[in-house]
Amino acid sequence: MKFLKTISVSELKTLLFKITPLVLGEVKLPLDDAFGRILSRDIESPIDVPHFRKSRMDGYAVIASDTFPASEDKSVDLVLVDHVQAGAVPKKEIQKGQCAYVATGAAIPEGADAVVMVEFTERTDNIVSTTQSVTPDTHIVKVGHDIPKGKLICKKNELISVSMVGLLSSCGMDEIWVYKKPKISLISTGNELVSSEIKHLDIGKIYDINSRVLKISLQNAGAEVEYLGIVKDSFETLKNAIDHGLSCCDITILSGGTSKGEGDFAPQVLEGYQDIEIMVHGVRIKPGKPFIFARIGLKLVFVLPGYPTSALSCYYIFVEDFIRRMAGYPLRDKNSISLEVGERIYSTIGRHEFKPVKIDVIEGQKKVFPIQTGSEAISTLFNADGYIEIEELESIVEKGDVRTVYFF
Amino acid sequence: MKFLKTISVSELKTLLFKITPLVLGEVKLPLDDAFGRILSRDIESPIDVPHFRKSRMDGYAVIASDTFPASEDKSVDLVLVDHVQAGAVPKKEIQKGQCAYVATGAAIPEGADAVVMVEFTERTDNIVSTTQSVTPDTHIVKVGHDIPKGKLICKKNELISVSMVGLLSSCGMDEIWVYKKPKISLISTGNELVSSEIKHLDIGKIYDINSRVLKISLQNAGAEVEYLGIVKDSFETLKNAIDHGLSCCDITILSGGTSKGEGDFAPQVLEGYQDIEIMVHGVRIKPGKPFIFARIGLKLVFVLPGYPTSALSCYYIFVEDFIRRMAGYPLRDKNSISLEVGERIYSTIGRHEFKPVKIDVIEGQKKVFPIQTGSEAISTLFNADGYIEIEELESIVEKGDVRTVYFF
Repeated sequence: MKFLKTISVSELKTLLFKITPLVLGEVKLPLDDAFGRILSRDIESPIDVPHFRKSRMDGYAVIASDTFPASEDKSVDLVLVDHVQAGAVPKKEIQKGQCAYVATGAAIPEGADAVVMVEFTERTDNIVSTTQSVTPDTHIVKVGHDIPKGKLICKKNELISVSMVGLLSSCGMDEIWVYKKPKISLISTGNELVSSEIKHLDIGKIYDINSRVLKISLQNAGAEVEYLGIVKDSFETLKNAIDHGLSCCDITILSGGTSKGEGDFAPQVLEGYQDIEIMVHGVRIKPGKPFIFARIGLKLVFVLPGYPTSALSCYYIFVEDFIRRMAGYPLRDKNSISLEVGERIYSTIGRHEFKPVKIDVIEGQKKVFPIQTGSEAISTLFNADGYIEIEELESIVEKGDVRTVYFF
Repeated sequence: MKFLKTISVSELKTLLFKITPLVLGEVKLPLDDAFGRILSRDIESPIDVPHFRKSRMDGYAVIASDTFPASEDKSVDLVLVDHVQAGAVPKKEIQKGQCAYVATGAAIPEGADAVVMVEFTERTDNIVSTTQSVTPDTHIVKVGHDIPKGKLICKKNELISVSMVGLLSSCGMDEIWVYKKPKISLISTGNELVSSEIKHLDIGKIYDINSRVLKISLQNAGAEVEYLGIVKDSFETLKNAIDHGLSCCDITILSGGTSKGEGDFAPQVLEGYQDIEIMVHGVRIKPGKPFIFARIGLKLVFVLPGYPTSALSCYYIFVEDFIRRMAGYPLRDKNSISLEVGERIYSTIGRHEFKPVKIDVIEGQKKVFPIQTGSEAISTLFNADGYIEIEELESIVEKGDVRTVYFF
């Protein structure tokens, strides 16, 4: 077993970034259910799109050379031999001197090699006169013009977007292979926690917030979540819950049980696993110093602080992008802007602080302001638009400084 | 019955914006299922958060005045009478000269009015010595400090975010009232369309793309979608499908059947409804001129063009924000940036064009370029990052012009 000392924010980020992605299995899904999943295979179009020559316009399919003599002064007469609506199979092959009506999107009959728009024609019974001469291929969409058969249309590891569903539909794909989602078990620990089913709160008890917020956030990051409930802070119950998490899931996330208070059993339980490698135990940040990241065999375990503000900050700052990477989802890291600080902000030397901030518009300009309540207040995080980072050796961020704001 | 002539883009946007939102019913949901829904009632906190005085630190709950004589040179001794862990009920009321251990988050015993951090104390058996004098309230989180009972915490008509789930959890809410989603029936029309279950495509046939893409897009806009399938282009079958849509849903969306070709029955079928008001029939845009918006009693009907590029452009430009407004969702309209045009773009006078564009980085600067394939190509829309608008009377957008790019 290997213990690491408290590490810095950038060390933790680097360490997490180096963890090899999980090996996720594959599953075949109906295309309708695949939006937001990750493709596990390259996809080549099984057909030409379109797979037949089709008309771009309502008009007449002709042999182009028949129309060469036509001009504004002199029309050319053609014999109408067929009507082809969109979706229909042409019945006749066009011979010299003949034409067929074609609707927009309809198949071009054999023999024809161009379309004259209906606006440039006049029809009397089965005779169509045109004053327009057209070159071969005019208003014809060729076979495979849009997507040739065999073309690589979507790449392995891409997130399935609305556009991709459109492309795959056009090629007639109705089932596709995607990765299974990483499975994450979620445990809340702490004797103070009660579930919202309990209507009367005793003195000392608080409602469990972390598991609800983490569950939705993990689902939005591409994971499948198994909530194992609120676990009382005893060695035995916590060990059973972690055993369960390790057996059914790829990653187990606990919140609570990391501090050095008398009733925190998570480190003790984890130390009991023979093949555990505790890679991080403590990060020099505020809020949320207690933090454990460990590997047990192929499974991963995170222990977040119990305080909601600390737990959720730690999750958003370190864990969410890690989960997104495991799930093949786009990272949140890029979701940031630079803004001027609207008032002086103080910070503690020796701790990398993630300061929750609000964005307000002052005289037409967006500026950032610190949230005044502390990490003990649950509403701190929920009233914030995002956070700024204050380095370990900074004690003051001056009004007027420009900082990067990361959104929650 | 009232027919309107072809209208401009801004007239259509104004008209749609003036339509009164649907009256959606309410439904009570478990909080875990409410993410992404719209609150149908104001919510006041049913409890104080916290609902008991709690400690911000690991330390000793004391009577502040007992510590006033303490200083670095002179410690004050207090008798330890209780240990209060987080989640536990204090067993003793603190009397003068006494103290109780309190963990972070634990309840403060009656009688005590401040906490001395454990770092400023020394303990020998049941005697705690402190060199720190503290004022009343030090390190104590008061009842209702975070959220006072009765405070309005979430407002009717707000979208339920992750933060809101956190706030509601902290107040112990486990079921909340949300609006029902608007119900939308989706019909694809056209004899050329086949479903992806069919593996061999006959000449003239194409796979249905619109319904798949529209279904996901409508779901993402907050709607519940009932897909009524591909309907052959005949008066009877189309009338049956529209009747079905009107009976089960708030809004019916057809794609296909709007042009003046011989096989388009949607306008004929709609004209047959006694109480129909056809509010729009045709918009001066490219691509996608054919477009119908009608009201039948309390129900609404949209008919989009059949060509996928046209249908989906029309949907994104006009219909999606309308649906979002009906569903109470944030509008997409704001999702835009201004960029320089990287090459000259031509447009047709007399048609407001929505030109699909790609964003490329040229010498470190993001610029927009037109997509070269036309509206007949399905991939046009799916390769685009967004679109720019070209007004009816503009024929050219010059390289170097700055335009607003709207994202799909």
